[in-house]
Amino acid sequence: MSGVPAAGSSVQAYLHELRDAVDEALEGLLPGLGAPPVLDAALRHALLGGGKRLRPCLTLATAECVGARLGLDSARARTLAMPCACAVEMIHSYSLVHDDLPAMDDDALRRGRPTTHVVYGDGLAILAGDGLLTEAFRVIAAAPSPTAPPGSERSDAERRLRAMAVLATAAGAAGMVGGQAIDLDAAGRVTGRNAPALDRAGLEDMHARKTGALIRAAVVMGAVVSGADEMLIAAVDDYARDLGLAFQIVDDVLDVEGSNAALGKTVGKDAAAGKPTYPSLYGLEVSRRLAVECVDRARATVAAAGLGGRLADIAAWSLARRS
Amino acid sequence: MSGVPAAGSSVQAYLHELRDAVDEALEGLLPGLGAPPVLDAALRHALLGGGKRLRPCLTLATAECVGARLGLDSARARTLAMPCACAVEMIHSYSLVHDDLPAMDDDALRRGRPTTHVVYGDGLAILAGDGLLTEAFRVIAAAPSPTAPPGSERSDAERRLRAMAVLATAAGAAGMVGGQAIDLDAAGRVTGRNAPALDRAGLEDMHARKTGALIRAAVVMGAVVSGADEMLIAAVDDYARDLGLAFQIVDDVLDVEGSNAALGKTVGKDAAAGKPTYPSLYGLEVSRRLAVECVDRARATVAAAGLGGRLADIAAWSLARRS
Repeated sequence: MSGVPAAGSSVQAYLHELRDAVDEALEGLLPGLGAPPVLDAALRHALLGGGKRLRPCLTLATAECVGARLGLDSARARTLAMPCACAVEMIHSYSLVHDDLPAMDDDALRRGRPTTHVVYGDGLAILAGDGLLTEAFRVIAAAPSPTAPPGSERSDAERRLRAMAVLATAAGAAGMVGGQAIDLDAAGRVTGRNAPALDRAGLEDMHARKTGALIRAAVVMGAVVSGADEMLIAAVDDYARDLGLAFQIVDDVLDVEGSNAALGKTVGKDAAAGKPTYPSLYGLEVSRRLAVECVDRARATVAAAGLGGRLADIAAWSLARRS
Repeated sequence: MSGVPAAGSSVQAYLHELRDAVDEALEGLLPGLGAPPVLDAALRHALLGGGKRLRPCLTLATAECVGARLGLDSARARTLAMPCACAVEMIHSYSLVHDDLPAMDDDALRRGRPTTHVVYGDGLAILAGDGLLTEAFRVIAAAPSPTAPPGSERSDAERRLRAMAVLATAAGAAGMVGGQAIDLDAAGRVTGRNAPALDRAGLEDMHARKTGALIRAAVVMGAVVSGADEMLIAAVDDYARDLGLAFQIVDDVLDVEGSNAALGKTVGKDAAAGKPTYPSLYGLEVSRRLAVECVDRARATVAAAGLGGRLADIAAWSLARRS
């Protein structure tokens, strides 16, 4: 596993290092977008407002782990994966901006700061989200073309096209946007509809689309651009499915137990809105056990694929987090 | 110019033929998107609501003209360009859905039918727009890979990546979304801002971003996927800049002269909102002359590049249209 930091250094420190690299890359992208000043300000507010940067860190960590197995050094894997890492965070950020709008979840607080529409108005918030979504694809399509990594029969352009298809499928009508539509419908917010409440299967389908799909895409893109074959891609996709579910359950649990200050967003809102959550359906104790089972499966999957180490550590960390 | 229909058949019939092919392709795409039913209905309303399909027709026509010069038959050029044609129309359609929202232009009528948010509510309309924008990139990235056309050193994947970069740049922060932000700001709709009214240069910059950029991308993508070299790409880009400006001027003139029934949207709205238009800045007569000059330049550009025929005919047609 040359190129991946020794397992002794803490996963938290590793994730902070990746987060700082992502923050620097995102900040570096904005001046080149050519946005008029009024839009630039809103894009900065939406994109640079802090946050864990979970998804892009997963892209980079996966690229480093897969790259190490294929003889790619860590710095090179990170360079190859950074456009995809930035893109997935831009798409996550746009989804928060649109989701917080009065026409959607109507949230005033995000990452400890006023939401984009509170600062700039709904119209510019919609446009800032549209801009981030569009630029996410430009970042991958227009990135300087590096020479192909070893161990891959696909050209760099073919790998980037595949990554973009993975990202668009996860973020689009079958994935994140579809999940948000189901969520909105279940909350009775679609004109002319009278949708029934979600049952357990419906809740799981909604979460798989709304948050799970993008986490899986983050991980799969990291593998694709590092030259993973189909078996490795399938393994990290399985890992990411379990990891994403664990994150969702822990989020729901923290929404019951946590504080506004630690989470940087309004707490208890889902429960107040009558939305079904894992704790409301299964209770806190069973929810916690379900999360542990997901993480155990995720760790076993990457170990079996020869990709343990950092990815396994990240799965374990996801259970212990408090925000 | 083998493969391009004889100049004798009318340009109107040619555009109708292309429009029908685009409509069929768009309709064929929707079932494969995997959208939940509530979102699928809104996507259909937003995408299949009629319209001239100007931008995708330009993509196909350019691909056929460029392809004919490079020895590519018409059917093959159309097949290569259809994913880009669908993508540009999906992006145009998403921009109309978001632009019509109460938080933006607040329009109730579009293409002769109630706008998406009037039928489904603001939240689902925002999501339908987000979905169309996302899926536009998926259509190009995930299209089946054909064998490379002759006369190009780029691989198919490289040409598709280039087309996606062109599309994202035109639709993003420097292009369409940037232009809409300037428009919104000039209308005093951005919280905490007191923007001055647009002067002529500001109006032209706004239009170049808001509508011109996507028309140029439509044309350039058609050339890129048919294997055009940089000189041909630059020529069709020049053609499209002049054509897009002519379209904008004619739109402004029709907004003064036309009827709601012919245009299928609310007429006189820009003037009523105090927005500057070509007729309000230059008067009707000078506006018409400016449009004629644009079209003359566009025709000369494609003739000099050996790409006259259909593209020149389309430029001439743009002056004569009544809707």
